[in-house]
Amino acid sequence: MAIKLYGLPMSTATTRVLLCLHEKGVDFELIPVNAFSGEHKQPPFLSKNPFGLIPVLEDGDLTLFESRAITAYLAEKFKETGTDLVRHNNLNEAALVKVWAEVESQSYDPAIKPIVDQYLMAPALGKEPDQSIIDTNLEKLKKVLDVYETKLSRTKFIAGDFYSIADLHHISHTYLFMKTPSASLINDRPHVKAWWENISSRPASKKVGEGMSFGKK
Amino acid sequence: MAIKLYGLPMSTATTRVLLCLHEKGVDFELIPVNAFSGEHKQPPFLSKNPFGLIPVLEDGDLTLFESRAITAYLAEKFKETGTDLVRHNNLNEAALVKVWAEVESQSYDPAIKPIVDQYLMAPALGKEPDQSIIDTNLEKLKKVLDVYETKLSRTKFIAGDFYSIADLHHISHTYLFMKTPSASLINDRPHVKAWWENISSRPASKKVGEGMSFGKK
Ligand SMILES: N[C@@H](CCC(=O)N[C@@H](CS)C(=O)NCC(=O)O)C(=O)O
Ligand SMILES: N[C@@H](CCC(=O)N[C@@H](CS)C(=O)NCC(=O)O)C(=O)O
Repeated sequence: MAIKLYGLPMSTATTRVLLCLHEKGVDFELIPVNAFSGEHKQPPFLSKNPFGLIPVLEDGDLTLFESRAITAYLAEKFKETGTDLVRHNNLNEAALVKVWAEVESQSYDPAIKPIVDQYLMAPALGKEPDQSIIDTNLEKLKKVLDVYETKLSRTKFIAGDFYSIADLHHISHTYLFMKTPSASLINDRPHVKAWWENISSRPASKKVGEGMSFGKK
Repeated sequence: MAIKLYGLPMSTATTRVLLCLHEKGVDFELIPVNAFSGEHKQPPFLSKNPFGLIPVLEDGDLTLFESRAITAYLAEKFKETGTDLVRHNNLNEAALVKVWAEVESQSYDPAIKPIVDQYLMAPALGKEPDQSIIDTNLEKLKKVLDVYETKLSRTKFIAGDFYSIADLHHISHTYLFMKTPSASLINDRPHVKAWWENISSRPASKKVGEGMSFGKK
């Protein structure tokens, strides 16, 4: 039975999982959720994820939500297939993947997400972007990116000299951020820029990026 | 060489790691960081964690930060010792641990932390708690706890019928939250209350709680 992914190709949490599935070369079926009609807030979907958010992954009897938990599950289950995203044969490298995956979740995402939301989502909802939200979060993001610039001058990828879910988790929001007027935050930092060009040009990243552009979120 | 933990017994991120070390029964040395003098923002500490935050764990040559990455590392490295916190022999249960650990990090903590900060930290800094921050986050926390109430009516612990890091990660902030005027949010939900009483009365939880009370943060 093939893996089922409930989500949308332009949802950043869904693309986190799509990137992982493509890196692993695992067969799956993408089942679109009608977010506009509020399908994800209705009982059938709520029985899969009580928080009413996409994505949800079904693998046989197992139902999972939270994109970063799903990628960690897939990386572990299919550890022998495709790209090794968690360094499963090296406890120390695996620990560094965990550290930098946490940095994405605790520091990078909380800063970049509101910027992307204001620049790209607010207009889609007929609102003006709130410049004070953008400015506050640009300050936070700069501090994080300064640490990344130093780290990426020492290692090729964020956790070490290997691609991992710690890099992959950054792609969804950075992809959208690069379409905003603040993209210079990445482009002005040479090691961050080179890292972004590297991870965004992987075949899996290009494939998933096409879906996001098509959605024009 | 024993594990070194740089942190403070009243810091919620440090206690997350302390809980794990005690559950595992692993020897370690707690090295206090002088946060008041800003030791964690100075070069020797910044070379361990460039973000200048506690805790940091050193295990031989390996230096780790981010409390949830450290607990995941310890749970994996010492999988045969003490409490099995990640269900390392069962891929499906391990996946559910990942899901609910993400829920703590993505939904529970972002709501409960600002409440605790306003009630307990603001006065310590000579400020009035900001009631609007408290109210906004109480609304968020209620929604999360409603989901928990249903989940905990079906399973004894948050990820299933077993204690795991998904439960453990909740303890630090909930311990402090129970000392605030909003503790009724937990006490009014019978399954959440029973779960809290269960996980907070474990020997490791009591031991770490004593350290937090002593610090009176
Ligand atoms: N932390 C969750 C976030 C999921 C999330 O926020 N999904 C968005 C789409 S990117 C969603 O379902 N939004 C619909 C809504 O909020 O109603 C994850 O990583 O899976
Ligand atoms: N996401 C980090 C948070 C670490 C954190 O915020 N630590 C606090 C103590 S609980 C700290 O170092 N605060 C000092 C400061 O912000 O200057 C983790 O889980 O380790």
